Amino acid sequence: MQAMSPEAYRALMMAGTRTGKLATTCPDGRPHVVPIWFVMDGEDIIFTMAAGTVKARNIRHHPQIALSVDEEIFPYAFVLIEGTATLSTDMAEMLAWATTIARRYVGADLAEQYGRRNAVEGEILVRVTPTKVIARTGIAD
Amino acid sequence: MQAMSPEAYRALMMAGTRTGKLATTCPDGRPHVVPIWFVMDGEDIIFTMAAGTVKARNIRHHPQIALSVDEEIFPYAFVLIEGTATLSTDMAEMLAWATTIARRYVGADLAEQYGRRNAVEGEILVRVTPTKVIARTGIAD
Repeated sequence: MQAMSPEAYRALMMAGTRTGKLATTCPDGRPHVVPIWFVMDGEDIIFTMAAGTVKARNIRHHPQIALSVDEEIFPYAFVLIEGTATLSTDMAEMLAWATTIARRYVGADLAEQYGRRNAVEGEILVRVTPTKVIARTGIAD
Repeated sequence: MQAMSPEAYRALMMAGTRTGKLATTCPDGRPHVVPIWFVMDGEDIIFTMAAGTVKARNIRHHPQIALSVDEEIFPYAFVLIEGTATLSTDMAEMLAWATTIARRYVGADLAEQYGRRNAVEGEILVRVTPTKVIARTGIAD
């Protein structure tokens, strides 16, 4: 097992349509985890979420989150990120990011359509600036 | 987006070398998430962990966990499982499960070698019986 360079873990995180697994803490202390579509803006993680979801409720209650992205093939690799979420409902900013995120996950042809669908009232734009990153490859070595 | 049948979400979870993303709550309330190698025993999730890891510390403090497994390609699908972890240090049982888990993730040729490596003093066998399962496919539809 070896540590990964910032370039290597960024490449792992941004490869293809790999999703992030977003962990949050419920108000009663139970953990929650759900896959998200995300992109990076420099070192920051950017995603959108509907205000009525469990993750949104949890983040409003407890803005510290953890995110994992991993490579599910031998010899395996993973990135763990911790940080605090900051929220925005600026519609212009949300449309731009939702379209960028959609381009990654549904492709250029559908990006604008999905971007518009995901940048509406009731959606929240989330930015997480990492406070801690752990990135390891060769887990099975 | 549609609900998945138990057969369909079980197939998703057990496909190939797909990992589970295990979320736990830290003693100070922060969330933690890390990929794990796992297998299913009926509906239960089985994995091993080293006693000194963050996830082991968290589970001893707060045995409720959440686990997500997802399909990272269009139209996307995910399974979320919640449950309470029960721990065992029975070495015979641990060796059997560690070998089964290794067979999945490193293949039949290396399964016994990895099983022996992962069934030693300081490792803990974990069983999670689901109390809640959410399984959805066609997320991007």
